[in-house]
Amino acid sequence: MAAAAANGNGSLANGGSGTRGKPIKCKAAVAWGPGEPLSLEEVEVAPPGRLEVRVKVLFTSICHTDLSAWKGETEMHRKFPRIFGHEAAGVVESVGDGVEDLVPGDHVIPIFTGECRECVYCGSDKTNLCGTYRVNPFKSTMTSDGGTRFAVVDASSGERQPVYHFLNTSTFAEYTVLDAACAVKVHPKAPLEKMCLLSCGISTGVGAAWNTANVSTGSTVAVLGLGAVGLAVAEGARLRGAARIIGVDINPEKFTKGKEMGVTDFIDSKACDKPVHEVIREMTDGGVDYSFECTGINDVLREAFLSTHDGWGLTVVLGIHATPKMMPLHPMELFDGRRITGCAFGDFKGKSQLPDLVDKCINGEVNINFDGFITHKLPFSDINKAFQLLEEGKSLRCLLNF
Amino acid sequence: MAAAAANGNGSLANGGSGTRGKPIKCKAAVAWGPGEPLSLEEVEVAPPGRLEVRVKVLFTSICHTDLSAWKGETEMHRKFPRIFGHEAAGVVESVGDGVEDLVPGDHVIPIFTGECRECVYCGSDKTNLCGTYRVNPFKSTMTSDGGTRFAVVDASSGERQPVYHFLNTSTFAEYTVLDAACAVKVHPKAPLEKMCLLSCGISTGVGAAWNTANVSTGSTVAVLGLGAVGLAVAEGARLRGAARIIGVDINPEKFTKGKEMGVTDFIDSKACDKPVHEVIREMTDGGVDYSFECTGINDVLREAFLSTHDGWGLTVVLGIHATPKMMPLHPMELFDGRRITGCAFGDFKGKSQLPDLVDKCINGEVNINFDGFITHKLPFSDINKAFQLLEEGKSLRCLLNF
Repeated sequence: MAAAAANGNGSLANGGSGTRGKPIKCKAAVAWGPGEPLSLEEVEVAPPGRLEVRVKVLFTSICHTDLSAWKGETEMHRKFPRIFGHEAAGVVESVGDGVEDLVPGDHVIPIFTGECRECVYCGSDKTNLCGTYRVNPFKSTMTSDGGTRFAVVDASSGERQPVYHFLNTSTFAEYTVLDAACAVKVHPKAPLEKMCLLSCGISTGVGAAWNTANVSTGSTVAVLGLGAVGLAVAEGARLRGAARIIGVDINPEKFTKGKEMGVTDFIDSKACDKPVHEVIREMTDGGVDYSFECTGINDVLREAFLSTHDGWGLTVVLGIHATPKMMPLHPMELFDGRRITGCAFGDFKGKSQLPDLVDKCINGEVNINFDGFITHKLPFSDINKAFQLLEEGKSLRCLLNF
Repeated sequence: MAAAAANGNGSLANGGSGTRGKPIKCKAAVAWGPGEPLSLEEVEVAPPGRLEVRVKVLFTSICHTDLSAWKGETEMHRKFPRIFGHEAAGVVESVGDGVEDLVPGDHVIPIFTGECRECVYCGSDKTNLCGTYRVNPFKSTMTSDGGTRFAVVDASSGERQPVYHFLNTSTFAEYTVLDAACAVKVHPKAPLEKMCLLSCGISTGVGAAWNTANVSTGSTVAVLGLGAVGLAVAEGARLRGAARIIGVDINPEKFTKGKEMGVTDFIDSKACDKPVHEVIREMTDGGVDYSFECTGINDVLREAFLSTHDGWGLTVVLGIHATPKMMPLHPMELFDGRRITGCAFGDFKGKSQLPDLVDKCINGEVNINFDGFITHKLPFSDINKAFQLLEEGKSLRCLLNF
């Protein structure tokens, strides 16, 4: 707690151990239906169950996945009322039975794809998909008992309406309950308003460059789609010493921000008189070593694939492809030596690997440009405005503080 | 030469250096049109051009690609008259200008995907696709001058009809001309009737297991399609110490042969009452570590992909997919951590890596079951019968000797 206060991260409003084992009443942004403005209201947050922790959220930001889910774009998202939000940082308020690696006061970042450290997946060095706590957009309740920890209580009748969880996190609330497997303890000196971005966007993009693609020094990279994840890929490639990082977007304004993150060349795909992959191949004598698809658009996936050099090119798919369209690639195209792979959470094993990354960020060994991603800061009460900024493409990350 | 004779591989019928620089008249199996019986007739084989070698073929066998090409199944194959054949072994008769690594008398195996050792691809350790001599089914003439080295000469008029080349090799002839980049020198003690199979099928399958998938000891493997390539995959996996090798085919008779090559379990896909991938997942507690698609059938590709374990499963596509159907996979399916890749010639760099493999086969360090693949032996003159055996699924490899 002291450490939290010392870092300007606030203190536990509800008094730390005073609230332990009791429900906490606090503000949350509740989504009552697809696309309806989020409603700031009082919710009751139950104490953490077995293997769970209750976290006081200090900062949260908004990612496109929140936007898609809020709009109810696919069937899996249509579970209301719900508390969205999955990119955040905060302080552990209390822990449930069986939690051994976290104590009240610990600084944590929630992760949507957790790590039980016991299953066959967690035991493998080839995947970060935990058997129990992996990302699952269909999941809307807690793992331990299938219940929710949020409720809206009618003041007059006392009737309790359960409110669903989202992506193992639900960070659009002053307090949230997480599986301990989905809470990463970080060094108390780490500035939580920046660490918040490691909770999703930056880890996903930087990790895709480092872990999934293993971008090498002097290599060439194309990033298709310069949102926060695409720019984080560029940032990861820059930190690896890529010689050339080609950014592709339909919005030329993205290049200004892209330059900060290491983008060396920009292609305005709307202004091209030939397919983007042809432009990239001409620029790079046959294609880039790595391409990253960060749009979720099927045709862009094909362009990303064809933009790489035959023989060794690797395409990493990061975009969420919401349509039922299959991959626009022919099996024989694999024989040209181009490869394609997916990537969840930058292939980071969150609890095992992020604390070390945070330490390196603190001691200056790794210089991720966190500030470059935070284009806006607003109080949590302005969350609907923050949604609008993201939807209009005006913000990369809008940091909301409580 | 002496070594060749000592190994029972015959001697140069046309007298070695006596034929140097002159055309050689010899027998070849000429395909005059799609599906027409191959016609055994005298062809004139020109001396090798720059960077080419002329090879006396001692053994050749037939692969499904010869069969497809002979039938003219796709546009790229409809180039007639043509001499097919790409799996063989022989002895260098003479070499053209600029050839530095081969001399007459060298024992060689032709490879359809060559290695110039000078281009950016040959300089990369990530690909075996040479920029100049990679496999190209559209190619029907020599690289150096765009001409053919084969001709049928009309006895009465003296008119010369050029005969096209196939897959950089054209081994259905007593003598053929290859780019030196497509001729791998092997140890003179290596038995050429076995080495013949390294020219395509065995290298492709074994290499897919060793180089492309890097199958590990104790792992689980599924092979979908138990033709020669599929069985060579099983053989490669067996040599790597895979714990379980599941063979899938519509023909249960394939299991008998499969057992010799290490197949531990057999699934008759026609007798399954649920999708093959479900059967395999049940057998292996979630899926195999590696699957190999060896049929060229689109639906089988999907089964192969889904047969692997999420998180780390790798599918290697080896089948030739001749239809325009795109890959039956959704982009989001990549997020489950299953990967898919193609593989040409087992990812072997032929000239650089096969001589070492041959040496290891000779000294017993590697025990590939060559004999298990040679189900039939016939004189070259029975080539049409050999085609029939393969088409009817009766042979794996029918060895033809001259």
